[in-house]
Amino acid sequence: MTEKKTNKLKILNDPIYGFITIPNALIYDLIEHPYFQRLRRVSQMGLSYLVYPGAHHTRFHHAIGCMHLMQKAVGILRFKGVAISEEEANAVYIAILLHDIGHGPFSHALEQSIVTGVHHERISLKFMETLNDEFNGQLSLAIQIFKGNYHRNFLYQLISSQLDMDRLDYLKRDSFYTGVAEGNINSERLIVMLNVKDDALVVEEKGIYSVEKFIVARRLMYWQVYLHKTGLVAEKVLVKVLKRAKELVSEGVELCSSKAFNYFLKHQINNDNFNLDTLETFARLDDYDVLSAIKEWISHEDLVLSKLCESLINRRLPKVILQNTPFTNTQINEVYNEVKETFNYSTKELEYFVYHGEISNQAYDATKNNIQILFKNGDIKDITKASDHLNIEALSKPVYKYYMCYPKK
Amino acid sequence: MTEKKTNKLKILNDPIYGFITIPNALIYDLIEHPYFQRLRRVSQMGLSYLVYPGAHHTRFHHAIGCMHLMQKAVGILRFKGVAISEEEANAVYIAILLHDIGHGPFSHALEQSIVTGVHHERISLKFMETLNDEFNGQLSLAIQIFKGNYHRNFLYQLISSQLDMDRLDYLKRDSFYTGVAEGNINSERLIVMLNVKDDALVVEEKGIYSVEKFIVARRLMYWQVYLHKTGLVAEKVLVKVLKRAKELVSEGVELCSSKAFNYFLKHQINNDNFNLDTLETFARLDDYDVLSAIKEWISHEDLVLSKLCESLINRRLPKVILQNTPFTNTQINEVYNEVKETFNYSTKELEYFVYHGEISNQAYDATKNNIQILFKNGDIKDITKASDHLNIEALSKPVYKYYMCYPKK
Amino acid sequence: MTEKKTNKLKILNDPIYGFITIPNALIYDLIEHPYFQRLRRVSQMGLSYLVYPGAHHTRFHHAIGCMHLMQKAVGILRFKGVAISEEEANAVYIAILLHDIGHGPFSHALEQSIVTGVHHERISLKFMETLNDEFNGQLSLAIQIFKGNYHRNFLYQLISSQLDMDRLDYLKRDSFYTGVAEGNINSERLIVMLNVKDDALVVEEKGIYSVEKFIVARRLMYWQVYLHKTGLVAEKVLVKVLKRAKELVSEGVELCSSKAFNYFLKHQINNDNFNLDTLETFARLDDYDVLSAIKEWISHEDLVLSKLCESLINRRLPKVILQNTPFTNTQINEVYNEVKETFNYSTKELEYFVYHGEISNQAYDATKNNIQILFKNGDIKDITKASDHLNIEALSKPVYKYYMCYPKK
Amino acid sequence: MTEKKTNKLKILNDPIYGFITIPNALIYDLIEHPYFQRLRRVSQMGLSYLVYPGAHHTRFHHAIGCMHLMQKAVGILRFKGVAISEEEANAVYIAILLHDIGHGPFSHALEQSIVTGVHHERISLKFMETLNDEFNGQLSLAIQIFKGNYHRNFLYQLISSQLDMDRLDYLKRDSFYTGVAEGNINSERLIVMLNVKDDALVVEEKGIYSVEKFIVARRLMYWQVYLHKTGLVAEKVLVKVLKRAKELVSEGVELCSSKAFNYFLKHQINNDNFNLDTLETFARLDDYDVLSAIKEWISHEDLVLSKLCESLINRRLPKVILQNTPFTNTQINEVYNEVKETFNYSTKELEYFVYHGEISNQAYDATKNNIQILFKNGDIKDITKASDHLNIEALSKPVYKYYMCYPKK
Repeated sequence: MTEKKTNKLKILNDPIYGFITIPNALIYDLIEHPYFQRLRRVSQMGLSYLVYPGAHHTRFHHAIGCMHLMQKAVGILRFKGVAISEEEANAVYIAILLHDIGHGPFSHALEQSIVTGVHHERISLKFMETLNDEFNGQLSLAIQIFKGNYHRNFLYQLISSQLDMDRLDYLKRDSFYTGVAEGNINSERLIVMLNVKDDALVVEEKGIYSVEKFIVARRLMYWQVYLHKTGLVAEKVLVKVLKRAKELVSEGVELCSSKAFNYFLKHQINNDNFNLDTLETFARLDDYDVLSAIKEWISHEDLVLSKLCESLINRRLPKVILQNTPFTNTQINEVYNEVKETFNYSTKELEYFVYHGEISNQAYDATKNNIQILFKNGDIKDITKASDHLNIEALSKPVYKYYMCYPKK
Repeated sequence: MTEKKTNKLKILNDPIYGFITIPNALIYDLIEHPYFQRLRRVSQMGLSYLVYPGAHHTRFHHAIGCMHLMQKAVGILRFKGVAISEEEANAVYIAILLHDIGHGPFSHALEQSIVTGVHHERISLKFMETLNDEFNGQLSLAIQIFKGNYHRNFLYQLISSQLDMDRLDYLKRDSFYTGVAEGNINSERLIVMLNVKDDALVVEEKGIYSVEKFIVARRLMYWQVYLHKTGLVAEKVLVKVLKRAKELVSEGVELCSSKAFNYFLKHQINNDNFNLDTLETFARLDDYDVLSAIKEWISHEDLVLSKLCESLINRRLPKVILQNTPFTNTQINEVYNEVKETFNYSTKELEYFVYHGEISNQAYDATKNNIQILFKNGDIKDITKASDHLNIEALSKPVYKYYMCYPKK
Repeated sequence: MTEKKTNKLKILNDPIYGFITIPNALIYDLIEHPYFQRLRRVSQMGLSYLVYPGAHHTRFHHAIGCMHLMQKAVGILRFKGVAISEEEANAVYIAILLHDIGHGPFSHALEQSIVTGVHHERISLKFMETLNDEFNGQLSLAIQIFKGNYHRNFLYQLISSQLDMDRLDYLKRDSFYTGVAEGNINSERLIVMLNVKDDALVVEEKGIYSVEKFIVARRLMYWQVYLHKTGLVAEKVLVKVLKRAKELVSEGVELCSSKAFNYFLKHQINNDNFNLDTLETFARLDDYDVLSAIKEWISHEDLVLSKLCESLINRRLPKVILQNTPFTNTQINEVYNEVKETFNYSTKELEYFVYHGEISNQAYDATKNNIQILFKNGDIKDITKASDHLNIEALSKPVYKYYMCYPKK
Repeated sequence: MTEKKTNKLKILNDPIYGFITIPNALIYDLIEHPYFQRLRRVSQMGLSYLVYPGAHHTRFHHAIGCMHLMQKAVGILRFKGVAISEEEANAVYIAILLHDIGHGPFSHALEQSIVTGVHHERISLKFMETLNDEFNGQLSLAIQIFKGNYHRNFLYQLISSQLDMDRLDYLKRDSFYTGVAEGNINSERLIVMLNVKDDALVVEEKGIYSVEKFIVARRLMYWQVYLHKTGLVAEKVLVKVLKRAKELVSEGVELCSSKAFNYFLKHQINNDNFNLDTLETFARLDDYDVLSAIKEWISHEDLVLSKLCESLINRRLPKVILQNTPFTNTQINEVYNEVKETFNYSTKELEYFVYHGEISNQAYDATKNNIQILFKNGDIKDITKASDHLNIEALSKPVYKYYMCYPKK
C-alpha cells in the first residue's frame, strides 16, 4: 500500500486510474494475505514482454484495478437508482478481487501444463473457500455471487460476462503496458452507460458505438498482442519445456527446481486429486519458480530440454509461419523432413521442435452472456441486432489462423 | 522486437514514447545478444513494486528508452548546427544502450552484496569490452566516449551528467510506472532546449524553468519513491538476507540456489578477482535467481534466514521510523532491548532484525557536471546562479534523513 | 510562434503532439500571412462546443497539425526507401497547410449559406494562387499536387484520400478536444504503417487492424460528435438565421453587421462572380463577424430573426427528434399544426421553426480513394477485401437518419 | 450538456477529467442560465492563443472544472471524517461555479479598461445576488461563503486561498490547452492530501513535496505562459486599443461597435454607478463584441486606432524587450526619439506605440491564505517552514521584470 494506511483511508497510486481506494478493512486484509501477495509474482501477460517490453504488469495489479472499476460501476448503478446493499457491494468487490487468484505461473500459457483439466476459476474458488474459513464466513456472499448462485443475476454479470470488470480492466491495462494505444478502451464511459433492467446488466442506447468500439478493440488486441506470433511461439516453447521436464522427471531424471515446482512436475494433478496440500503448494508457485528452473536447465545434459530452455531465455525463438488456411500434409511433411535432415533429430525429438496448430479469436460470442442494449423506449436488444451497420454478427464468428513452428537454421 | 524486423526499419512499441526506432543492424544485434537480453530480467526499481504495484519495468526497457532519447538529442543538436558524424552518433547510441548492462539483480539494492566494491559502471565496461571483441572493434568509439576519453566532451555529457539521457529516461519512466504523476519530467522539452557551447552541453536560457522543474521533480521522486520508507525497509531486508546467506555458506551450510547465484554466495568478488569467468557467471544472474532462492529459503532451518525471507515474500515487513535527526543512543538501545526481550534474540541475531542508518538526497549536485545555462548574449552560468529566485543552491545541499527498523510485535 | 524564431529552428507547443517544428522560412512566412492568421478565428467544429465545452480549437491549429503529420509521413516513407525530393516534401507541407484556408466562418455549417455552390476547396485554391503570386511562384508545385495534376499520385493521396493527413489530424484533434476518448485514433501508428507501391499510398499488412479501428472510430465520431443531435439542431438554427438575414436584407431591411459580412448578405456569390474583391472580403470574414451580428440581432424587431438568434446565443435550442426511418407526412403535418396553433405562426414563419431532413454517414467510401493494403507477398487489396471478418463492406453503405426540429413549448 | 439530461444523471465529457457530473437540478439550471452561458464566449487566457495555438478554452469550461474538483474535495474531506452537510456542499459547488461569472471580455486583460476600479469578484457577487432573487434565495448560503461570512472558514478556503479549486483547475487546464506539459499539476493528488484542522484547510505532511511542486509549476506557468512576452505585448496593444477607442468616443467620433460594447465605451463605469442596467448590459458583453469591433476599426480613418487594430488581428505585434532591471531614462528616451523620427509620430501618438512597465510574479504569497501543512503529530506549519530545503521563502518574494514595447521598423 502506498498512500495511506490509517483506519479510514487507504489509497494507492495507479498509473492508469490515478488513485485507487481500498474500501474497507476486510478487503485490505485480503490484499495483505500471502495468497493474494503471490499474484505480485505472476505476470498478467506471460511471455508477451518478449514482444512488448513494457508488458511486465502482474495479476496483483489487474485484480486491484478490477476492484476499482467495480467501485465505479456500483456507484453509477446506485446513482441510476439500482438498489445495491452495502453487503452486496462488498461481496462483488471481493469476488472480482479474487476472481483470478487461482492463476498459476505464466497464467494461461501453462494452465494445462501445471495441472491437468483444472480450470483456474476452479482453483480461485478453492482459494476463496479456504479464505472464507480463515475470515469466519465473511466471503460467503462473494462466493455465492462468484458461483452464479445469488438471485440477483446482474451482480454475477459484473464479475463474469462480455462486459465484466475483468475485461474492462485487462484490455485497458494490457493496452497501456504494451503501448498498443489502439487497444485502449474507454472503460469509464462503458461503465457510465451501464444500467440494470429486469435483473440483467444492460448498456444504454447511447453507448452502442462504445460497445462496438470495445469489440473491435478487443479483436485488435487479440491479433496484435495476445496472439502475436512471437508471443505465441514463446508460449509454445514454454509448454514444450514443461512437457519435456515432466517426461524426464517421470523417467527418474533429476531436475533442479523449487520444491513447489517439483511437486507439480512429479504429480499429475487433476480435479480429483487436487487437495488442500496441493492448494498450499500451489500457493507458493509463481513465475519465479518456473523461470529460474528454466535458466538452470539450460546447462542440463538433456539436449532437448537444454535447447528449449536456451531458446526461451536468450530469445532465440523458432521460426513461425502464420496463415489463414490449415497446413496441408504435404507442407507439414516437407518441414518435418527438412528439419530432421538438418538437425538429425529423432522422431521423438522432432515433436519438441516442429509443431503446428490452430489459434482462433472470436471478438464477440453471440451465444452466451450477450451484451444487451437498452433502448429509450424500454426495449432490449442484443448488440448484434442493435448495431445499425457494423456487422457484429460477422465478428461473432470465430476467426481461425494456423501456425507452424520449426527451428531456424 | 515487435514491429518490424526487415532490413530497413525496426520499430517497437513503447508506452511512453509511442514508437522507438532501432537505428541500425549493429544496435539490433547488440539488443539481441544474451548479455543484453538478461536485462529483461533485472527490474529497474528493485522492490519498489511493493509500494507502487505498477513498478515492474526493467533495465532492458530503460536502456532502450535512453537510446531513443539519445536519437532525439542528436537530431536536435544537428538541427541547431552542431556537427555530429554518423560514427559519433552511433557510438553514443551504443554507449547509452549499454551504460547499465553491468547492473546485477535488484540493481542498486544489491550492488554491494553480490560483489564487493565493484561499481556497476565498471562491470558495464567489462561487458562492452567483451562485446567489442565479439563485434570486431565496432564498439571502440562508444567505449572511448563512455570512459570520457574522447576529445568532444559534450558527447560524454549526453551519457553522464546531471542532464544525461539516463536521467531523462529513468525519471520519466519511473514516474510513469509508479503512477506518481508529479515526477513526470518533460524530457522532450529539455532535449529541445539543449545546445553545445565550447564543447559543453548547455541548456538555452528559455529552458531555465524547465531545468528548475526537473530538479524539483527529481527531489520529489527521491523522497516519495526511491526513498519511500516501505521500499527502503524492503531493500534493507533484502540486503540482510544476502548477508545471512553468505554467512551461512561461509560456515558450510548448504543453501539451495542457482549455480550462478551460488558462485557469488561462495566467492567474495572484488575488483581484483573479477575475471572473465566471473563476467560469464554474472551474465547469467538476474532477479529470478535471487527471488526464487529467497522463496526456497523460507523453509530453511536457519530461523534468521527463514524469517527474513518470509517477511520479504509475504510483505510482512519490519516497522520503520523515519526522522530528520539522527537517533540517539538512548533511543537505539531502547529499541534493541525491547526487541531482544520480546523475541528472545541473541545479540548476533539482533543485527539482522534491528538496524538504523541514514539516507540522503541531493536534488542537484553543484560540484560536478553542473547544468549550464546559455544566455542569449552568449554568457554561460551554472543553474544555481542563473535561476532568479528558486534557491537551487539550497537544493544542492544534501538532505539527510534517519531510519530505524525493527520487527512488528 | 511560441518557442523559437531564430533562423534555424522554429518550434511550437502542441497539446497533442508535444512539439511541432516549422521546417523552413517560406512556411513560416505563409503561417504569418494574414490569410492564414484568419484561421485562428475560424473554429474547427462550429457550434459543437454547445455540446462538448472543450471543442474550441481552430482551423489554424488543425492546419499546423496536418503539416506536422505530413513531416512524419515523409520521414517514414523516405526511411522505407521511397524517394521524395526536398522540393516535393516542401510542396506537400504547403499543400496540406493551406488545404483548408478557404473555409469560411463556422466551417461546414455555413458553407452553403455564405456563398452558393462554391466549395471551400475551390476557395482554398484561389487563396493559394494569390499567395503564389505574392511569393513569386514558390507555391507552384504545391498547387499542382493539390489539384491532382502532379505525376506522383501518392503525394496527392497524402493530401486527399481516405487516409490523408487531414483526417489523421482532425479525428485525433476533435477527439482530444471534445474528450470523446474513443474517437482517438493512433495517427502515429497508421503513418508508421504507410508505404508506396506502384505510385499509390498503401498500408502494410500488419496495419490492417489499425485501419479497421480507424474506420470504426470515424464512424463513432460521426454519430457521437459531428452529428450529435444538439450540435445538429444548433447548426440548423444557424443556417436559418443566415437565410432570414439574407431575406430581410434583400427586402431592404437594415441589419447591423460587419462590412465583410454585409457584403455576403447582400450579394449572392457563386462560382461565376467570385472575383478577387470577393476573395479579399472573404479574407476578412470569420466566426466573430457572424456571432457578433447574431448577438446584435437578438434585439432586432423582426421576430423570426430575433427568436432564432436568441435561441442560439442562450442555448435555448429547438427540440429535435432523430429516428432511423423517414418521417411520414402524417407525423410531419401533426407537428406543423401543433406548432402553428401553439405559437400562432404564419406558414412562412413556420419554415424557420419547424423543419426536417436527413443526415447520413458513411464510415468508409468503397468507391473512391480506397484504402489499399499491401501484403507481404506484394499483393494489394482494398481494405474491404483484406479484412478477415469485420464487415467493412457493410460499413461502406451510408447510414441514414432522419431529424425533425420544432420549438419547445 | 452532452451526455445525459434525465432527472437523475447529468454527465458531460471533459478532455481533462474524463467525465463531469452535474450534481443536482439547481446547478443544472444555473449552468443553463444566459448569464452563465455567456462564459462560453469569454476565453480563459485572453490573447495567449497568439502564442499557444491550443489555448482557446473558456471561462465556462473552467468554471465547470472547478465545480468538478470541488465535488472531489468534498468527497475526500467527508471520507476523512469532516462533516459537511448537503446544504453546505451544494453551496460550495454554486460558489465555485459562479466565482468568475463577473469576468468581462478577455478576462484580466481588459479588467481595468471596460470598467474602472470594479474588480471582477465584485461583479460576480452582483450576478450571484441577482440570480439569488431569481432562484428564490437558494443561493444565499453560497453567497455567504463566497463573501467569507460563513462561520466554517475552510469552506471559504476551498473557494479562495492559495490551494483553492480555482487554482487547481486553471493551472491544470491552462497547462493542458497550451501544451506546456511542465505546468501540469497533480490536482487529484493535492485534493487527496487535503484535510481540515481547527476549521482551517490543511495539507497532510506527505503532500509536502506535491505542494512544493505545485508552487514551482505555478511559477513556471507565470513566466512561460501568463507573462510570455508575446502574449504580454498583445495584451498591451489591446489595452491601448480600448484607450484610444474611448478617447475617440469621448471626442464624439463615431465608432462601429455592438450596443453593449458601445455602452461601456461611452460611460465611465465605476463602483458608484454600476447599477442593474449596467449589469444587464455587461451580461451581453463578451470577446465577440470586442474582437469584431477591432476588426472593423482596422478600416477606421483614425490612424492610431487603425494601426493598433491591424497589428492585433494580423499578429504583427510591436517589438518587446524584457529585462531584469528597470529601463533607464536614457534607454527610454533613445527609443522614443528613434520611433518618433522613423514614424513621424506626435507626442500624443507616441504613447500608443511606445510604452514600458513592469510585471511581477510571486510564486507563493506568504502573507495571506498560506498553505498549512499538518504533521502526523498534529502540528501545523506554514509550507515555508515545513519544506526542508526548497527555499519557499525565497519564492515568496515577488520577482519583477521590465518590458518596453515599440514598433518594428
